[in-house]
Amino acid sequence: MAPTSGFEEMWRDLAPVGRSASSGGYFRQPWTTAESELRSWFAEECVARGLAVETDGIGNQVAWWVPAAAAGRRGVLTGSHLDSVLDGGAYDGPLGVASALAAVDTLRARGFEPDRPIGVGVFVEEEGSRFGRACLGSRLVTGATTWDEARELRDRDGVFLADAVAGAGLDPEAGLLSLDRVDTFVELHVEQGRDLVDRDVAVGLASEIWPHGRWRFDFAGQANHAGTTRMEDRHDPMLTYAMTALAANKQARLAGQRATFGRLSVEPNGTNAVPSLVTAWLDARASSDEALATLVEAVERQAHDRAERDGTRLDVTAESVSGSVAFDPDLATRLASLGGWPVIPTQAGHDAGILSDAGIPTAMVFVRNPTGVSHSPDEHAETVDCLAGVEALADVLAELARRRDPA
Amino acid sequence: MAPTSGFEEMWRDLAPVGRSASSGGYFRQPWTTAESELRSWFAEECVARGLAVETDGIGNQVAWWVPAAAAGRRGVLTGSHLDSVLDGGAYDGPLGVASALAAVDTLRARGFEPDRPIGVGVFVEEEGSRFGRACLGSRLVTGATTWDEARELRDRDGVFLADAVAGAGLDPEAGLLSLDRVDTFVELHVEQGRDLVDRDVAVGLASEIWPHGRWRFDFAGQANHAGTTRMEDRHDPMLTYAMTALAANKQARLAGQRATFGRLSVEPNGTNAVPSLVTAWLDARASSDEALATLVEAVERQAHDRAERDGTRLDVTAESVSGSVAFDPDLATRLASLGGWPVIPTQAGHDAGILSDAGIPTAMVFVRNPTGVSHSPDEHAETVDCLAGVEALADVLAELARRRDPA
Repeated sequence: MAPTSGFEEMWRDLAPVGRSASSGGYFRQPWTTAESELRSWFAEECVARGLAVETDGIGNQVAWWVPAAAAGRRGVLTGSHLDSVLDGGAYDGPLGVASALAAVDTLRARGFEPDRPIGVGVFVEEEGSRFGRACLGSRLVTGATTWDEARELRDRDGVFLADAVAGAGLDPEAGLLSLDRVDTFVELHVEQGRDLVDRDVAVGLASEIWPHGRWRFDFAGQANHAGTTRMEDRHDPMLTYAMTALAANKQARLAGQRATFGRLSVEPNGTNAVPSLVTAWLDARASSDEALATLVEAVERQAHDRAERDGTRLDVTAESVSGSVAFDPDLATRLASLGGWPVIPTQAGHDAGILSDAGIPTAMVFVRNPTGVSHSPDEHAETVDCLAGVEALADVLAELARRRDPA
Repeated sequence: MAPTSGFEEMWRDLAPVGRSASSGGYFRQPWTTAESELRSWFAEECVARGLAVETDGIGNQVAWWVPAAAAGRRGVLTGSHLDSVLDGGAYDGPLGVASALAAVDTLRARGFEPDRPIGVGVFVEEEGSRFGRACLGSRLVTGATTWDEARELRDRDGVFLADAVAGAGLDPEAGLLSLDRVDTFVELHVEQGRDLVDRDVAVGLASEIWPHGRWRFDFAGQANHAGTTRMEDRHDPMLTYAMTALAANKQARLAGQRATFGRLSVEPNGTNAVPSLVTAWLDARASSDEALATLVEAVERQAHDRAERDGTRLDVTAESVSGSVAFDPDLATRLASLGGWPVIPTQAGHDAGILSDAGIPTAMVFVRNPTGVSHSPDEHAETVDCLAGVEALADVLAELARRRDPA
């Protein structure tokens, strides 16, 4: 067996992949060269640990450690994703994958022999940065989204998902990862808020994921000359959009929830033309399903009112909506007690939420983020906290892979 | 000599070039295949009329009709442009070129023998749709912009102007069109407002072009997670932009001027990320240089105030500003009297403004636009009005090419 890389060495190996020289951020979109390089990196790290890696038809990966005592049993899967948002940070996703591999090393160094298999996995297109559907890999594996539905998705250049997957040398007909042998799922992730900073601890467990979703707002008006068209004769969808973006912010602020317009597309997008079409995506999250519905309804209502005033038209399409996810509370309590870690909620979606929704007992381990900044080149975690995360994950896996009952 | 095409036949020939099947609008960006096709079309039409066409080092074209009696004299140039805004209309530009050729036919059919040369010309990149600098061809020819400055401009894909020009098989070192022999310039153009509709006439002359310009607004904030970042912790440049777009509209409306944000670029433009950067272009126009300065200052001030509130940063760069252009008033009065045509202002920039600024006596002929819509697939003019425009342009050229003094 080849010598394995420690966490810090793995982290250095990952650092340059898909990194923008100008911003320092990452562009690790699924089924691109950068992501294919990451898939190879993961496979090599697994092989170096003597773990046979299995890559499914869309690029999800898993490698199982099955000592003789664990053979034939269902086991605990840990891992995360390697893709990034556009110009994202280094930690969101890869931290969970590198920590999973390092935790296996830690358990082995401790001489721990699991009674159940321990798997390390990677899910594709978690961010939805290319095809607009977050957690696409885990959704397909759990059946939350079907391949027939997904294959028709297109990226911003009009490429079909099916063609992107085929272009990466993968074949969905070869089948998807089976979760049949997964007894429990654990995802380690950098925290994307400042709860752990406020509590002055390096590690925490997740209680729940807020309900959240993406809605596409198509504001249609009439293209016209920006100079000669009197202001009162215009049907300018940019105005309807602008008011809607401000309204979404205000509604979320007042309600203590979240609403963001971070992605926009303008037609024809010419300086001297009133636009014909502005398409904008609302990302909204709230502390309950009802609060989310109320928030989105309020934004839609204000947008429609303004569209009437501007003489524009508005169509709203829900592209993906995820209800509230409550992680198994007994599991969270049991695992939190291992290190006296706090149990905190998150507003971010994760593959863990999809697996939990599919009925798999699931937990998340968070690692402190000193600024709370995420989805940004500025995202950061201290190495000492990352190493504490590896230790915590090893403790969690040891607890879960210990036979508690005669199976 | 080949038989020449009449106006309607030329119009049919032009109809499919660069037309979008989905919107019906035109994408005739400079130094692209569509534009190269238009350049060939123009050259063929000139040759069919026995006019030798000269193409300069960046693609401006001119063909002179020089009867024996006119040899050695300075003459009248007429023409317009063939490029379009993104998803633009059929008439803005090409109407002036096809009408110029048809007016030559009309003069010849009338048996008219000019005492001065009559030239038909085409200027490149009038719309600034690719390199952001409106009237680039005429600016280079008049020296208002230098080649050393222009060659460094980049399009949205990062292509340098110099490379785009070379890629179209042109060589700027070969020199630019000379305007030395141009005594007077006349540009026929579809009207882009509804003055002629309101006055119930098919043709008008231009009095002036409103001062106008393009300003780039760079709103910089901090990229962050759209779900986990509390609303109060954000530095979201989209909010600063949205308020600025609404403020620009309101300021222009109150002042009876024009302000438009029709072009936008967002970084990283991801649904689940607060943007790090929103770049937006303000197109502003006003009835006087002072009113324009006041309008832009008011928008900038409100934008800066909001940036302070949002914790974002704003940089404003004037990309091109054209002062008021008053066309030669005696010339306009003299030409208007030929047909009893009204003399009206326009808010749109034209190559005619650049040539007028360069000290060349210049006039514009407008053709009625029934809806006033322009820079849009919906732009339209009735054929009967276009033919009236050709007759009017022929009358204007006859007046200008008649020897009035012993030269």
